[in-house]
Amino acid sequence: MEGSIKCNANYVPLTPISFLERSAIVYSDKVSIIYGDVTYTWSQTHQRCIKLASSISQLGVSPNDVVAVLAHNIPATYELQFAVPMSGAVLCTLNTHQDSSMVSLLLNHCDAKILFVDHQLFDIAKGALEILSKSTTKLPILVLILDSDENTSVSSNTLIYENLIAEGKLDFEVRRPKDECDTISISYTSGTTSTPKGVIFSHRGAYLNSLATIIINEMKSTSVYLWCVPMYHCNGWCVPWSIAAQGGTNVCLRNVTDKDIFDNIFKHNVTHMGGAPALLNMLINSPIRKPLSGKVVVMSGGAPPPPDIFSSAEELGFHVTHAYGMTETYGPASICTWKPEWASLPPDAQAKMRVRQGVQHVGMDELDIKDPATMKSVPADAKTIGEVMFRGNNVMNGYLKDLKATQDAFEGGWFRTGDMGVKHTDGYIEVTDRATDVVISGGENISTIQLEGVIFSHPAVFEAAVVGRPDEYWGETPCAFVKLKEGYNATEEEIIQLCQKHLPSFMAPQTVVFGDLPKTSTGKTQKYVLRGKAKAMGSLYKKKTLAD
Amino acid sequence: MEGSIKCNANYVPLTPISFLERSAIVYSDKVSIIYGDVTYTWSQTHQRCIKLASSISQLGVSPNDVVAVLAHNIPATYELQFAVPMSGAVLCTLNTHQDSSMVSLLLNHCDAKILFVDHQLFDIAKGALEILSKSTTKLPILVLILDSDENTSVSSNTLIYENLIAEGKLDFEVRRPKDECDTISISYTSGTTSTPKGVIFSHRGAYLNSLATIIINEMKSTSVYLWCVPMYHCNGWCVPWSIAAQGGTNVCLRNVTDKDIFDNIFKHNVTHMGGAPALLNMLINSPIRKPLSGKVVVMSGGAPPPPDIFSSAEELGFHVTHAYGMTETYGPASICTWKPEWASLPPDAQAKMRVRQGVQHVGMDELDIKDPATMKSVPADAKTIGEVMFRGNNVMNGYLKDLKATQDAFEGGWFRTGDMGVKHTDGYIEVTDRATDVVISGGENISTIQLEGVIFSHPAVFEAAVVGRPDEYWGETPCAFVKLKEGYNATEEEIIQLCQKHLPSFMAPQTVVFGDLPKTSTGKTQKYVLRGKAKAMGSLYKKKTLAD
Repeated sequence: MEGSIKCNANYVPLTPISFLERSAIVYSDKVSIIYGDVTYTWSQTHQRCIKLASSISQLGVSPNDVVAVLAHNIPATYELQFAVPMSGAVLCTLNTHQDSSMVSLLLNHCDAKILFVDHQLFDIAKGALEILSKSTTKLPILVLILDSDENTSVSSNTLIYENLIAEGKLDFEVRRPKDECDTISISYTSGTTSTPKGVIFSHRGAYLNSLATIIINEMKSTSVYLWCVPMYHCNGWCVPWSIAAQGGTNVCLRNVTDKDIFDNIFKHNVTHMGGAPALLNMLINSPIRKPLSGKVVVMSGGAPPPPDIFSSAEELGFHVTHAYGMTETYGPASICTWKPEWASLPPDAQAKMRVRQGVQHVGMDELDIKDPATMKSVPADAKTIGEVMFRGNNVMNGYLKDLKATQDAFEGGWFRTGDMGVKHTDGYIEVTDRATDVVISGGENISTIQLEGVIFSHPAVFEAAVVGRPDEYWGETPCAFVKLKEGYNATEEEIIQLCQKHLPSFMAPQTVVFGDLPKTSTGKTQKYVLRGKAKAMGSLYKKKTLAD
Repeated sequence: MEGSIKCNANYVPLTPISFLERSAIVYSDKVSIIYGDVTYTWSQTHQRCIKLASSISQLGVSPNDVVAVLAHNIPATYELQFAVPMSGAVLCTLNTHQDSSMVSLLLNHCDAKILFVDHQLFDIAKGALEILSKSTTKLPILVLILDSDENTSVSSNTLIYENLIAEGKLDFEVRRPKDECDTISISYTSGTTSTPKGVIFSHRGAYLNSLATIIINEMKSTSVYLWCVPMYHCNGWCVPWSIAAQGGTNVCLRNVTDKDIFDNIFKHNVTHMGGAPALLNMLINSPIRKPLSGKVVVMSGGAPPPPDIFSSAEELGFHVTHAYGMTETYGPASICTWKPEWASLPPDAQAKMRVRQGVQHVGMDELDIKDPATMKSVPADAKTIGEVMFRGNNVMNGYLKDLKATQDAFEGGWFRTGDMGVKHTDGYIEVTDRATDVVISGGENISTIQLEGVIFSHPAVFEAAVVGRPDEYWGETPCAFVKLKEGYNATEEEIIQLCQKHLPSFMAPQTVVFGDLPKTSTGKTQKYVLRGKAKAMGSLYKKKTLAD
């Protein structure tokens, strides 16, 4: 429009770096991080990050080089969420549960120039570098992160995290992105369904998701966030940047145990946390559980929470919000936003409302369920199944070095999640199954999530996962893997009968296996492992048996 | 980065239109607007806006054409904040206190294609069109907004607002901006210091400011906002869009009187409102004032609030936040964010902290005080005066059809506010004077704001404004215009002595004039009018008198 100018005064590329710079002024003396006896203020965190960025740059890292981190939820991991982008580099936080071989593969894939490593994971890192050294001479520089009270003897040529900060320059000129769509981080998917892919986040997406997270969770500058969600999991769902934007307080947590969680909640008056339903399950079944002294808002994602978890958690004082998303959507992308009118529903109906994946959050533009072939929206009839698709600034830039996979994911101008679901009449969506997790038995699609919900309602059941067991006659039959609560018992027959009572009988599992469930490090059940087990069992029905 | 794609799936131009579309799903049955006996839900508001956008488009409006609105804070004004951008057009809300001559000038300047007009302002609009018709044949189409219960007889060829909605099409394809930097609105400045300029807002700036506003004010989906800030004033500080983003409730208010404000606060459990200090002053001095039943967060801007207002307002239950900004920054751009440690200060010291203009909000990138000649930052010493400058996505695109003024405003890559101020050691800024309001007496800069603060502390004073009275010897002398509270008395001598007691004696006013203060429609004192009066008084000291 005539009279307009686009210049530095009115156009600044969006980046979460600005949140830290602002909090260093507005909340300078307010506590930014608590970790055991260690505390920092926002002014200190800002200064430490500038100095760290200066040292990262001094180590020869150029803009867009990747800096990797292999560490638990300790203060360094938080600081690196800012310091790496501030150096102009791209952050890649690695899953702490991976072995040396996988770590070496990922370091190689993203061509990491530096690897920051938690002392507890030093051996994995060294192992990874050893493997890497067989195929390349350009190894990442290793930087060791020690806990402050630590006296680990390290070889004199090992770089130490705190030394990098001490030696860094406070007058370092922070390198902000030239274009807000530039890469801020690479997050490898946790590999529930395939080998890890490197998901590319932009400064713009990170900025917008951080603000949306504050709004969804109604976070205030007085909010205290307990770090249960791993920061390597899509940058801790972007919450590190949200807390800086709002000037709240981070409580770091090395060991995500029931004791450490309850202790920290009480000691630091925690107001917010996040975690997979498995984490909530652990807390509500913990022998040391006790009613909280204040409300703790929990954003729960990573898997659909079994209905019972809500009520049990709320009895203790947790206020659970069900979120749904994936690494490709910067973490939570839809929220089952509570509607006041649900309060008058009976508990069962309420629970059914709450396990739905809901509606896109304020930062995500569109959420739809579409027929993946025609790209037409399914009717909002709570029945017609289609693919869950997103569109918005909180969808990744793409998969690192895998243009084909990016193109496939964005085919038709929408991000295709691969998850299947229905749209309810109120516009809320419900995921019925991950595309690869649907059990198709005798031509009927069986929702393993529905089945798992019913099994979970059995009082003895701690966890449940259903997969397809290959079958010569039916194609597949549903096979349930169940972990019982300590000191409880249940039989295969009981579980099957329970399912038959609540669902069409063809949906009931034909097999129930009791035992521990294999998990990814982010708490998701590794269904592909269970699928392998089910496959190994062989067919339940023989073609000829049924032909007889 | 290799593997990235920028496409519809992951890049959507930012626009507040998305807020309404989302709230229509998430908060479909929740009340969006209350106005007397009229209420709408978010689903209804969404549908009404689509139909209105369809009708606007049917009237022949093309993308980027301007649609003007001359109306009080009624539901139509709220709806037009969405419907006009949804039609692809640019919204221009006009100051309701202007006369036909000014309205015709502005309509002509922005080349408005439609003028929506409140029935109470119909005569002004008709007068404006009459004036316009003398110089052009392309007059804007007039659309009359009637209150729902109204039976005004109108000529049959006059378009009626509700008819446009009734006739609009629900399947209209909303026209989102192609580029997020495209213009969403034009807001004419209120003309405190010069003739109105047309400030251009972008969809991007509006989107980001709306989210920042939610965060600053800690607004929830349960928040209820009372419309005291005129929606013609930088689009109601972008709050119409914030409320839609969070799914809160708007309480519209035609008459901004103490009675209507108190009535609505109690009736609808208002949680948030905004307004100039003059509005707060009216409330705390109202004979019908009474303690609120719940806390009401008030963002106060438009002028620095005299210290006493905070405590008096808080005694009633208002929680006042001091914001600072201007049309060019989409309304509030900095906030005097409360620091918990201030709670332990004595009331006087607390008040001093709170009248400062503070720090940039989370949506504004940088705030600085710079020497306007060298563009160097002034030291944070609370003494050195420089010009207040902003940089960020919440700075306007420019002034409509006035590239020269835009270039001047952005000279050096910062938005130059024209206001002078200091930076305190904690990084908070304090505006000492508007560039044109400094009184320079005998070469000394006198802060009229400081002077006004002292005068205001006199128990009989209701309002005070100081300007320079031209003087042959001193250049200028400070001249105070004072309005006393009803039933109170004070003398010129008392006021002068009070100032001499609290400030260096050269700062004390040499003249005190009692009476009403001239105001702009947004509650700002029109200092240029007072300056005219002071000039008419002539010089207090004669050159030769002092040469004797």
